[in-house]
Amino acid sequence: MVETLAPRAETAPFLEAAAALLGAKGFTTDPETIAPWLTDWRQRFTGRALGMASPASTEEVAGLVRLCAAHNVPIVPQGGNSGMSGGATPDETGHAVVLSLRRMNALRVVDTATRSATCEAGVILQVLHEAAEAKGLRFPLSLGGKGSATVGGLISTNAGGTQVLRHGSMRALVLGLEAVMPDGTVFNQLVPLKKDNRGFDLKQLLIGSEGTLGVVTAATLKLEPAVAAREVLWAGTQSLPKARELLLLAERLAGQALEGFEVMPQHSLDAVRDYLPGARQPLAEDHPWHVLIELVADADGAERLPELAQSVLEEAFEAGLIDDATMAANETQAEAFWNLRETIAPAERALGPAVQHDISVPVEKMPAFVEEAVPLLEAQWPGTRAIGFGHLGDGNIHFHVIAPQGADRATWEAGDGKAISRQVHDMVTAWGGSISAEHGIGQLKRDELARLGDPVALAMLRQIKQALDPKGLMNPGKLI
Amino acid sequence: MVETLAPRAETAPFLEAAAALLGAKGFTTDPETIAPWLTDWRQRFTGRALGMASPASTEEVAGLVRLCAAHNVPIVPQGGNSGMSGGATPDETGHAVVLSLRRMNALRVVDTATRSATCEAGVILQVLHEAAEAKGLRFPLSLGGKGSATVGGLISTNAGGTQVLRHGSMRALVLGLEAVMPDGTVFNQLVPLKKDNRGFDLKQLLIGSEGTLGVVTAATLKLEPAVAAREVLWAGTQSLPKARELLLLAERLAGQALEGFEVMPQHSLDAVRDYLPGARQPLAEDHPWHVLIELVADADGAERLPELAQSVLEEAFEAGLIDDATMAANETQAEAFWNLRETIAPAERALGPAVQHDISVPVEKMPAFVEEAVPLLEAQWPGTRAIGFGHLGDGNIHFHVIAPQGADRATWEAGDGKAISRQVHDMVTAWGGSISAEHGIGQLKRDELARLGDPVALAMLRQIKQALDPKGLMNPGKLI
Repeated sequence: MVETLAPRAETAPFLEAAAALLGAKGFTTDPETIAPWLTDWRQRFTGRALGMASPASTEEVAGLVRLCAAHNVPIVPQGGNSGMSGGATPDETGHAVVLSLRRMNALRVVDTATRSATCEAGVILQVLHEAAEAKGLRFPLSLGGKGSATVGGLISTNAGGTQVLRHGSMRALVLGLEAVMPDGTVFNQLVPLKKDNRGFDLKQLLIGSEGTLGVVTAATLKLEPAVAAREVLWAGTQSLPKARELLLLAERLAGQALEGFEVMPQHSLDAVRDYLPGARQPLAEDHPWHVLIELVADADGAERLPELAQSVLEEAFEAGLIDDATMAANETQAEAFWNLRETIAPAERALGPAVQHDISVPVEKMPAFVEEAVPLLEAQWPGTRAIGFGHLGDGNIHFHVIAPQGADRATWEAGDGKAISRQVHDMVTAWGGSISAEHGIGQLKRDELARLGDPVALAMLRQIKQALDPKGLMNPGKLI
Repeated sequence: MVETLAPRAETAPFLEAAAALLGAKGFTTDPETIAPWLTDWRQRFTGRALGMASPASTEEVAGLVRLCAAHNVPIVPQGGNSGMSGGATPDETGHAVVLSLRRMNALRVVDTATRSATCEAGVILQVLHEAAEAKGLRFPLSLGGKGSATVGGLISTNAGGTQVLRHGSMRALVLGLEAVMPDGTVFNQLVPLKKDNRGFDLKQLLIGSEGTLGVVTAATLKLEPAVAAREVLWAGTQSLPKARELLLLAERLAGQALEGFEVMPQHSLDAVRDYLPGARQPLAEDHPWHVLIELVADADGAERLPELAQSVLEEAFEAGLIDDATMAANETQAEAFWNLRETIAPAERALGPAVQHDISVPVEKMPAFVEEAVPLLEAQWPGTRAIGFGHLGDGNIHFHVIAPQGADRATWEAGDGKAISRQVHDMVTAWGGSISAEHGIGQLKRDELARLGDPVALAMLRQIKQALDPKGLMNPGKLI
């Protein structure tokens, strides 16, 4: 599958200049070295590339971007290559250079006084977690790909995860940003100001722009005090509306202590038990829906946390919102609870062909949306199974529709699967929701965004893209 | 001073069409009606206008903007006309129309379940406060002009205030936004999604853009639960570095309960006592610096709040950070403490000519900045007095330099005053700070931004402005 193009005649001067600029460690056209980075981790997209640049500094990134601008070479920025929408995979023309930020992995400062970390774009999320922990702090964003996802990729895709409920997505955690713009100049707002009203918020514009406006090279990130205690609760409930009532109850009782609120249907739990050797569901019986709740406290509130957790469950029982519940007895069990939740995605994928949708609607509408969408889709495509799981507290559900037993993957995904996705996206749009809650648009959903996006917003996206990247060299074919 | 231009021959068709579109209540060219809105409340800028439009709906705003686009008529959006930088005052050409949003003052919903309020741009901040309170909620942003400032103006200027420390500025409190774009189309993200990754964050781009990219017509705002208790503390300290240590101590002990942290020098308090009949300073003796701290709690933490407040003061005494302190005995006293703080600006202005600077530097550097800047400026311009007061917790100080006794206002402000402002802005920039922390750029600081702004950021601002408003009709002469 390695199909790196033989360099076209006119690309030779660019390749020579790039090699001269970045050296052997910083630039390669070797097909075997590049190959792993031409396919996204979900293996949905494979592209080709002129070469792969791995600069070691912001200056080298800027130099490369200027070189690309001079030679009209498109740039595909890439972090851990663990994105969900093919946003870091080049197209099949082979005209682009992959710009890997992985060598820029210096974690410059973890500062307890300002509760912040300043690091280069290539720092891996897990490394950041560990560095923060070592200083009694934490970075309150985590997700399945934390062992490969980089800070730059997380910023470029405005990544979410299971702590958005309390801490917001990546957008809320970036205090300062450095990026190389399409003309090779460096946008530098790395030193954070808590207040700065000097015009449009360019930092927020770059966050979530998926490399189409510039290349994130470094960031200053917000850290929080480490938690002194946590309680992980598991409850079984009859319906999503009841789960939503439980969320409101937990918000009312626990306030800032409520950090995670995830839902999953029995079907997902069954899939996990089939997939994960030795996995046990926390409750004795099956329930239509399961809820995972995480409560946390700092030193001041640690003592009262178990009591608070008990009162959430007691009030929920009294109000008839849940039928059974348990609390993790220790950290090992807490981790086991979370592991069940985090294994849903691979477990569901192992069941066979399916189409996945990362959707959001206004939080209060999500139960009704799922209750309407599931029977409608299953009736329209007999034999399919529709399930939603995930971040109910954010109005964000991962909504999967599983192919009928025995369906051929390629045929089904290209046919019914595609039609189902369009139908799901149509419904979400009609409900005032988003076809990409946290995974971004990339190349996976670009056509759907063009089809369903608000024309006024789409026009603004295109105008801004055209203004900042008039040559269209930054991550072409992504987002817009 | 009313100098509304006689309509130029070619503007007649526009004026006729605007009158037909908006009716007598919605459009006027009457000089007396318009006059109060042609001068900003600080009376620093006076402009002229073709007429004043007061549309009653988003559709009427859109219609007017289309009309202006067709006739090349510039638009100056205006809320409560209480901005600090002349951002809502037209220029002197008289070519523009003032677009008042004050008639659009419907507060559509205050929703306790989603803790949000949806309202039109013309809703006055105090009205929003009262509506939230009536439902057991609060909107956690307040400032001196709350009786006139509108939601649209607060959003367009990304207003701050005394609660930014905990809740962020306006930017953090806007969940949904509706705006009319320069071509008269309506950008509608009024229904909030907690997660939405469909491209660049256009909502954040519009917030703080000072009407140069579009006209904010409505918003959905974040509300918080009403506080069940508060403690307002007043302490005297020797220096700003000690005040900063006290801030860190309060953050450590009080966490989320810390909602306000304001500093002021004795000079400011003296000015308030001279200005405000019957004002008494909370402590018996003078101190070089005074600190006002507000701690709040919900029902769960209300009981422990007095004890928490006591422990902050006790630890601060023990650490040698403060020399005297008191706690407000009741709400009346708490309000009196805050009233001292809020009276500083008018009291300082009453002392005579001065130049004011709304500056920020990284929070941890602010004490050193003030300690360097004050003696330097007072030495360079003998007879002046430099004072800083305000939001130390945000790294944001209102830095005033008062003219020598007996100086002629006009002469001094145009001469030494201007030179001092340049010097202050030069220093702030050298320290990595902002020449506008919370007041915006408007027309007051436009030249200074052009002089001192990062060229890369300035280029981006201009490119985006040009892309979204190619005719340059939206609030010309402001910001960029």
